[in-house]
Amino acid sequence: MSKIAVDVMGGDHAPDEIIKGCVRAAKEIDCTLVLVGREESIKEKLSVYTYDQSKIEIIHADEVITMEDSPVVAIRQKKQSSMVVGLKLLKDKQVDGFISAGSTGALLTGATLIVGRIPGVERPALAPIIPTKTGYSLLIDCGANVDAKPSYLNQFAIMGTVYMKHCLGISNPKVGLINIGTEEEKGNQLTKEAYKLLDQELNINFYGNIEARDISEGKVDILVCDGFVGNIVLKFMEGFGKWILHMLKVEFMRNIKTKFAALLLKKGIYSLKDKFNYSTKGGAPFLGVNGLVVKTHGSSKEQEIYSTILQTEGFVKNQLVEKIAKNLN
Amino acid sequence: MSKIAVDVMGGDHAPDEIIKGCVRAAKEIDCTLVLVGREESIKEKLSVYTYDQSKIEIIHADEVITMEDSPVVAIRQKKQSSMVVGLKLLKDKQVDGFISAGSTGALLTGATLIVGRIPGVERPALAPIIPTKTGYSLLIDCGANVDAKPSYLNQFAIMGTVYMKHCLGISNPKVGLINIGTEEEKGNQLTKEAYKLLDQELNINFYGNIEARDISEGKVDILVCDGFVGNIVLKFMEGFGKWILHMLKVEFMRNIKTKFAALLLKKGIYSLKDKFNYSTKGGAPFLGVNGLVVKTHGSSKEQEIYSTILQTEGFVKNQLVEKIAKNLN
Repeated sequence: MSKIAVDVMGGDHAPDEIIKGCVRAAKEIDCTLVLVGREESIKEKLSVYTYDQSKIEIIHADEVITMEDSPVVAIRQKKQSSMVVGLKLLKDKQVDGFISAGSTGALLTGATLIVGRIPGVERPALAPIIPTKTGYSLLIDCGANVDAKPSYLNQFAIMGTVYMKHCLGISNPKVGLINIGTEEEKGNQLTKEAYKLLDQELNINFYGNIEARDISEGKVDILVCDGFVGNIVLKFMEGFGKWILHMLKVEFMRNIKTKFAALLLKKGIYSLKDKFNYSTKGGAPFLGVNGLVVKTHGSSKEQEIYSTILQTEGFVKNQLVEKIAKNLN
Repeated sequence: MSKIAVDVMGGDHAPDEIIKGCVRAAKEIDCTLVLVGREESIKEKLSVYTYDQSKIEIIHADEVITMEDSPVVAIRQKKQSSMVVGLKLLKDKQVDGFISAGSTGALLTGATLIVGRIPGVERPALAPIIPTKTGYSLLIDCGANVDAKPSYLNQFAIMGTVYMKHCLGISNPKVGLINIGTEEEKGNQLTKEAYKLLDQELNINFYGNIEARDISEGKVDILVCDGFVGNIVLKFMEGFGKWILHMLKVEFMRNIKTKFAALLLKKGIYSLKDKFNYSTKGGAPFLGVNGLVVKTHGSSKEQEIYSTILQTEGFVKNQLVEKIAKNLN
């Protein structure tokens, strides 16, 4: 039976919400969850729930990597942290996947230093799903590589294609390069060079450049960019979406008439809110790491942890890491 | 009396809407408008309006630069285009400002090649206003410099500060550097280096790094970034905003109950829509050009042209170009 390790100490709502999510997921999955963190505390919190004890194991880890820690220093020095212990379990093939809601920087550093890259991969990438008009798109890279080379972007496209095909069931995913214009010659040095590589790459279905105004249209399945641009898109979407919801709320609360209108619209507005909230879409794997490392949003609660575990189980079953290795070599 | 030239042939709704906007503005401004484009056509269209004839002049220009033209080729070869003719009027000090809704790339190329840079300015920048929770912020640069150097970003901050102080009346505008984290050491090579320069720059009020999720919060008055990132933010905001309004519309039209709710909310939703529509905020000057060149959105209609003309009159009165020159030297 497969095993998935979960960093119980990482994220804004650790350990309570992480444990809740694990208990809920344990009821539905076919694999064992390995909860990594302070054993006594985990045991105590688990004691209030009823669950299949054969499905949850605990591995003790005394330290915690915080958001304030420098990623490299933390990974090197906090050997007893839940993140480092979890990544080592993965490296040693004691588990088939590792999930964390902790520091993205530390997780990427740890994934690269401890687990290592798939041979042939230049840089692993963080690839979350973002909502669009037609459903969703994969945004790759989203913060792992802030100074990228054209060849990285080409590999991101290949890894993204494998992921979308085998894990999300999209048969021939379209790859778009995020750029400032649609024409081939548009862009900065990086995107101009990357365009040429992507255009010649046989392992992907290249759509061409995609302007930022078309991202939400869902014209492509995979949005390729460097980690700086991806981070800007992802976080701007989060902040802008939040502001719009705030403005809607203000309009709804304006007077008795608008409050009544809000009541009539309630269901629709909730579904809208849910659509913006990309964290409900679960976690994002670091594609290119020689083991399954999945990052989930720092603000993850029970629901997100639960979704991410189910999703990670799917990645294990679909042999995501093995398929990326095969497609890059 | 000052003169402002307007490119009557540029933009999606040229020449009709451009002319409409000019006629409307002519009633309110203290300066003369110089309409640049096909004389006969302009005369014919003007003939249906009543306006103070001393306030509108026409300068003939036979050619039109289209969105399909390569910027550099178009500026070099289409000497009789409304854009080139207008920019030459500005260069020769026949007019005090030039407005165009035509190709951004061509306008930037033309502004740089024909009008030239203010001595000491490394690169001019396009700086539109974007809506935020607290009002608006200046986004500089927005597409002029896709491969920027740290020193460009520092000059953008200075030019943006002059603009916000003298044209928008913000006494000590806060400058934020768009980045992937708030800490000083975060970012790519460009932002890390730019941070150091901005932090030491005495002519600005530097706030520090600003994450994309905080852009809409309006924490700073000036958002500094390279033109690639600025273009992504601006266009993503446009596309994402459009999608959200589309989803709201779908919710409103769902059934008789929601349609009634929409009716009750009508006014509020219109004001929301207006808030997203950054084109109503008028045009964006190319800061750093040795003459006042103002770009307005390609989709500009009467309202936007009218606002941009009023705004440009303000830039002339406030001696924007002269003040930037003084502050950079």
